[in-house]
Amino acid sequence: MSHDTYMQVAIDLASITHGQTSPNPLVGCIIVKNGEVVGMGAHLKAGMEHAERHALAMAKEKAKGATLYCTLEPCSHTGRTSPCADAIVDAGVAKVIIASDDPNPKVAGNGIKRLRDAGIEVISGVLKEKADELNHGFFYHVMNKKPFVTLKMATSIDGKIATKHNESKWITSEEARLDGHKLRHQHDAILVGIETAIKDDPSLTTRLPEGGKNPIRVVLDRTLRISEDAKVLNDDAPSIIFTTNDVSEQKVERVKSKTTLVIQLEELSIDAILHSLYKNNVTSVLIEGGGTIHDSFIRSGYFNQVIHYQAPLLIGGREAPSAVSGTGIEALNDAPRLKLVSVDQIGPDIKAVYMREEER
Amino acid sequence: MSHDTYMQVAIDLASITHGQTSPNPLVGCIIVKNGEVVGMGAHLKAGMEHAERHALAMAKEKAKGATLYCTLEPCSHTGRTSPCADAIVDAGVAKVIIASDDPNPKVAGNGIKRLRDAGIEVISGVLKEKADELNHGFFYHVMNKKPFVTLKMATSIDGKIATKHNESKWITSEEARLDGHKLRHQHDAILVGIETAIKDDPSLTTRLPEGGKNPIRVVLDRTLRISEDAKVLNDDAPSIIFTTNDVSEQKVERVKSKTTLVIQLEELSIDAILHSLYKNNVTSVLIEGGGTIHDSFIRSGYFNQVIHYQAPLLIGGREAPSAVSGTGIEALNDAPRLKLVSVDQIGPDIKAVYMREEER
Repeated sequence: MSHDTYMQVAIDLASITHGQTSPNPLVGCIIVKNGEVVGMGAHLKAGMEHAERHALAMAKEKAKGATLYCTLEPCSHTGRTSPCADAIVDAGVAKVIIASDDPNPKVAGNGIKRLRDAGIEVISGVLKEKADELNHGFFYHVMNKKPFVTLKMATSIDGKIATKHNESKWITSEEARLDGHKLRHQHDAILVGIETAIKDDPSLTTRLPEGGKNPIRVVLDRTLRISEDAKVLNDDAPSIIFTTNDVSEQKVERVKSKTTLVIQLEELSIDAILHSLYKNNVTSVLIEGGGTIHDSFIRSGYFNQVIHYQAPLLIGGREAPSAVSGTGIEALNDAPRLKLVSVDQIGPDIKAVYMREEER
Repeated sequence: MSHDTYMQVAIDLASITHGQTSPNPLVGCIIVKNGEVVGMGAHLKAGMEHAERHALAMAKEKAKGATLYCTLEPCSHTGRTSPCADAIVDAGVAKVIIASDDPNPKVAGNGIKRLRDAGIEVISGVLKEKADELNHGFFYHVMNKKPFVTLKMATSIDGKIATKHNESKWITSEEARLDGHKLRHQHDAILVGIETAIKDDPSLTTRLPEGGKNPIRVVLDRTLRISEDAKVLNDDAPSIIFTTNDVSEQKVERVKSKTTLVIQLEELSIDAILHSLYKNNVTSVLIEGGGTIHDSFIRSGYFNQVIHYQAPLLIGGREAPSAVSGTGIEALNDAPRLKLVSVDQIGPDIKAVYMREEER
């Protein structure tokens, strides 16, 4: 079997942990000796064993002289665990095949150097593109010190998110909505504007048949208008409410709780909000609107990915709200250019994924 | 080789004549004898030979005892040509394989009966669905005495057709726009509102590198405001301007010409316009907007297909026009339900084709 075959399975192992490893990346590992798989593993949760450790533990003495496939360059620094590169050397592994380099330019190559210095043969870049894709959020976060931002839209064919009377339940299908809950599971945080929080009173939790992790619910609320009874303040998932310094201490006290953090900023600029989320260990944010919030993110330029669910119906109406409202762009040349990454049918709907071209 | 294989090629032959046979259907024919193809043909233009005639002319005496594949039930009535069923009988064909039945309920089955009465073995329904698809416009037209209506939209991800300053050139890619010209070639007529005719002064002709047929340009113009210099009145393609009875004779005289027909109706209802187009031998109409025209067709219920080109950019803005404006639907339950038939990448854009579920 080829390097690609084993690496693909290592990537598959990593991919099923999407949503549970943050702020760490997704990593999978396979160990092969004399054509037989002797170990496998994935990193499951921050603070716990790295993928290589699980695979080495399974392989035990069979790791000696074996080939180790790892989707990400093994670490060479002591964090919450000791360096994986050392463990690989100590186990007597003969060959290491790597997909993605370490995204942190300061340490990239150190893991490979440590392995090579110990006489291990290293091949890197095998299925690199697929493995990079797995961690695009994590990589972006590490390189840019900002969370990876996904704009989610669920619209009719004509881009509407509700009728002119604000009826919006439901435009997209159950299948598409379920997929939307997977996005919540996969992102560290979910962000809405205060208008959406008041109008829809959403819980913003992850509701998947098989369970799933709740994202941190983030609400932008300049004047702290949110109701104390709002679901985002009362479910047991954590929340962050962004407001301004102008808001009174008393108002803040009314809202903050064991699970709700209130962060006051000079002004609610997208830049400042993302920086604050980064400092709170948020590596990825899902923006669920409404239209004014989407417009702010688009015009600020701070977004990386657009996921668009589109239902096969037409709503029409000059007054019916569109997915992106606000002030909009001034000229077509100002429009952020995106690249269509995939388009699929999901139930009766379309799911299209776009990446910012500039930000990749 | 199987019946499906030959029928598929007969369908392929028919499909390349899309746009040139109206008001007749697309039909392809293959004749096979002792495992060898001895004849083939397609109906090329209304008033000229039917597909079966071309194939029989090629096969000559080899048609005797042969199997004839035809995408549509052979005609049994004398129109501009004598009945094909008779010609097939006279040629001594032994077996006839048919895909689609004649769509006209009054004559459906007569062709098959004529063949069977003469002792020919007939199998019908082979690749019926694909062959029906080929002529859905024609079938709809014959059955409902109305043209088949396609709504064409070209938008950003968020459903906008221009910026708030009405800049619209170009949102979609060259590839998508070229595909749009194919739609013009394939439809008998193209329809826009007077707002679009004044604002954009489009020529609405078919501009394909390999040539192509111009559709009849149709403009809805209640008060006959159109400029005498408008491109649709001055290019050599034919035009129909719909206006009301209230408009003065003098105004009508100003506009009508050798290539421009002015039709006056009591009121410009979609129903009356489509009925009038039907009487003028228009079997299919492509609606190119703007948003108010799209909204009228959607709310009237008189449309069959939606073709949506979607470019990978975001425009936003409450004031930027969407593909469907007007008054819009009142409740989500009123939204016409469509079925996604296909979704493909076209250049950097998405092309999605939807059919009305009720109208099929």
